[in-house]
Amino acid sequence: MTEEFGLFSRLVRATEENWRAYTRHEFVLRLAAGNLPEACFRRYLVQDYLFLIHFARAWGLAIYKSDTLAEMRLAQRLVAATLDVEIGLHVDFCRGWGLSEAAMAAEPEAPATIAYTRFVLDRGVAGDRLDLEVSLAPCIIGYAVIGAERMADPGTQLDGNRYREWLEMYAGAEYQKLAHEAKAALDDQFARRGGEGRFASLAANFGLASRLEAEFWQMGLDAKR
Amino acid sequence: MTEEFGLFSRLVRATEENWRAYTRHEFVLRLAAGNLPEACFRRYLVQDYLFLIHFARAWGLAIYKSDTLAEMRLAQRLVAATLDVEIGLHVDFCRGWGLSEAAMAAEPEAPATIAYTRFVLDRGVAGDRLDLEVSLAPCIIGYAVIGAERMADPGTQLDGNRYREWLEMYAGAEYQKLAHEAKAALDDQFARRGGEGRFASLAANFGLASRLEAEFWQMGLDAKR
Amino acid sequence: MTEEFGLFSRLVRATEENWRAYTRHEFVLRLAAGNLPEACFRRYLVQDYLFLIHFARAWGLAIYKSDTLAEMRLAQRLVAATLDVEIGLHVDFCRGWGLSEAAMAAEPEAPATIAYTRFVLDRGVAGDRLDLEVSLAPCIIGYAVIGAERMADPGTQLDGNRYREWLEMYAGAEYQKLAHEAKAALDDQFARRGGEGRFASLAANFGLASRLEAEFWQMGLDAKR
Amino acid sequence: MTEEFGLFSRLVRATEENWRAYTRHEFVLRLAAGNLPEACFRRYLVQDYLFLIHFARAWGLAIYKSDTLAEMRLAQRLVAATLDVEIGLHVDFCRGWGLSEAAMAAEPEAPATIAYTRFVLDRGVAGDRLDLEVSLAPCIIGYAVIGAERMADPGTQLDGNRYREWLEMYAGAEYQKLAHEAKAALDDQFARRGGEGRFASLAANFGLASRLEAEFWQMGLDAKR
Repeated sequence: MTEEFGLFSRLVRATEENWRAYTRHEFVLRLAAGNLPEACFRRYLVQDYLFLIHFARAWGLAIYKSDTLAEMRLAQRLVAATLDVEIGLHVDFCRGWGLSEAAMAAEPEAPATIAYTRFVLDRGVAGDRLDLEVSLAPCIIGYAVIGAERMADPGTQLDGNRYREWLEMYAGAEYQKLAHEAKAALDDQFARRGGEGRFASLAANFGLASRLEAEFWQMGLDAKR
Repeated sequence: MTEEFGLFSRLVRATEENWRAYTRHEFVLRLAAGNLPEACFRRYLVQDYLFLIHFARAWGLAIYKSDTLAEMRLAQRLVAATLDVEIGLHVDFCRGWGLSEAAMAAEPEAPATIAYTRFVLDRGVAGDRLDLEVSLAPCIIGYAVIGAERMADPGTQLDGNRYREWLEMYAGAEYQKLAHEAKAALDDQFARRGGEGRFASLAANFGLASRLEAEFWQMGLDAKR
Repeated sequence: MTEEFGLFSRLVRATEENWRAYTRHEFVLRLAAGNLPEACFRRYLVQDYLFLIHFARAWGLAIYKSDTLAEMRLAQRLVAATLDVEIGLHVDFCRGWGLSEAAMAAEPEAPATIAYTRFVLDRGVAGDRLDLEVSLAPCIIGYAVIGAERMADPGTQLDGNRYREWLEMYAGAEYQKLAHEAKAALDDQFARRGGEGRFASLAANFGLASRLEAEFWQMGLDAKR
Repeated sequence: MTEEFGLFSRLVRATEENWRAYTRHEFVLRLAAGNLPEACFRRYLVQDYLFLIHFARAWGLAIYKSDTLAEMRLAQRLVAATLDVEIGLHVDFCRGWGLSEAAMAAEPEAPATIAYTRFVLDRGVAGDRLDLEVSLAPCIIGYAVIGAERMADPGTQLDGNRYREWLEMYAGAEYQKLAHEAKAALDDQFARRGGEGRFASLAANFGLASRLEAEFWQMGLDAKR
């Protein structure tokens, strides 16, 4: 299946307004332009650290929700990627921004962080693994779309941009590959557990998850006040 | 949709051997013939009491798994039917067989009881509400099929049959109506959450649930030794 | 046990700042003074309708999480109170404020509604029934505290107050009794499943739940803009 | 805390009859004596392969149920140990007994396998992480106890014993260390989430889990017929 006809593309097309509000949020555009206030980015970094803990929990849940060893191993790779690699990279990256892990761990979770993470976990528990992966897609795949779109945008300013590293990470080949695999996993789940009857409900979840991701950017942006 | 083309009928046709082994198990045939040893029936009654507790838990889980108020209310009716009516009727019925509620509650759960109930709950948590309802179908709808088939069978002996009340309860209009509604609910779930891709996995769950129901009868039958 | 030494009172004392910020939130004080803008109250009413659906799901989850028939029946009563009584009363009440059920059901859930409801459900699934009931306590018991405190406050203005009915409902004997039973249920859970080692974690959940309830009021208040 | 006063030792003492019936089951004694029929061992090997899949699911669930990164990493290690090491070793070992992975995966799960695995998962979902770890303890720690006890028993026959490798694996330093860590994790959970009020319920779960483990041996033994 070409990506254009895959489940992810269909979900984006069905919820385009939410999708654009999330992927082209002012936070993202200013980050790419290099004029996002640092307080906003720091706020985002701290909450993203707290987010990652629940992201790892979501993939732990996916292990439990697996029907086959292959499915389990896919979810296990994402738990490991999060706990063994991403959290470490994030902590290193944040140290460069003057944020220690202890300080981030002591910070209260913002309502926007709670809303998105617990929404995903609830869809994952109440629904099945397809519901879980669809709710996570705006995060995993969305960051790859954001990275690629910003890199292709003439308005993006890389020279002297404090956020360049962040952009290059999500636009980079490694992350793009991970997002590509996540799309293929969605198609696989939809083939085995989906059906047209489910599309409306999956699109509603996907749209709401995108809306909550936009709220997450907004929470970062609000730190400038 | 005529029942013949409904999800339930398709599941039965896809797992016919398991289905027959369950619905025409020696326990059932001897119960209908009136020559099932009483010790077997008593064993069944006690374990069925313990079963009902987890059956009510399963419908509580379905409330949590609901997407709409209508779905919630359907599940709530089955919780209420179990906790407010069925357990009471079962306790009354068992008293007639010399079994007190306290004595039944103190009895250890048989492995066959644990296997079926926890299998259903696991499918219900790991999967979605369709998985849950499909796993419960051999119980809810199966008992109506068993009741109706035995009543229509010339080999069934009602006169002087100690188990007549049991047969008449499940063959009766009230229980048949409940089973009919459960079939309609399955079709509704399959329309909204199903799709042909899921059929193989649903049939596997349905077949395994029927096999575990057959083991439940066997556990009763083994009490004669 | 006198209430003062019960689990609920200990949780309040351990998280007093959050508790006060929630129970004496500007939304509540202005509602009692009768000068809360109607747009704020309407916003609250709509989101509270959406909240109730997840509240019923939480008590369905509690049925599944029960160890005894007595526990199941307690949870079942709260499902029934929500689905059979509260939602109906709420819909009637809202009609008086010009809000139809269809209009409320079509409204998107606010992030504050998602944050609190899904936080509760996540605590309930990831933890045990004690975690679930502690996370729900700021809602169930908190509304009774708010009602009683406002009625006892000389600053409260009942004459000509558009919100009088709301205050009288939560301050009334029936709701106070329900809150009293919820406190007793918490003590029972803590005796059977608790222990001092759990107190810190329970207090953290209770405090966070109260913070999310305060955000819920704030979401209502923000509608005045 | 010395192990003697740890939670595991207390659970064993509270359920001694079940514990002995499990750890000194005829299957185990004959395996140590070297006169267990091979058909019994093969039956056990196949079902143990199916068991491991749900064992990995249980540790995935524990990741989801974690409150801290440390807890998550502990559970993640056990997922990895199962999916990356144990299943592989088991498959290699079984190949030596003429059993291919495909053949084992195609085998239906025995009711005894379903009963124990789904019981554990249900305790894990309905309860909290302490309930989950207590239900898994007869498996993880029990195998270490069985290995050590058999090696210390003069009745054990190592020379020419076809099952020697199995005994040496569980009696070996590596597995004993894993069991030792599992005991420490239980004590840690009990300190943070336990309390004397929970002991009776935890002991009931532990005793039932041990009973279901004994049924698992019995299922193997029954293959000789």
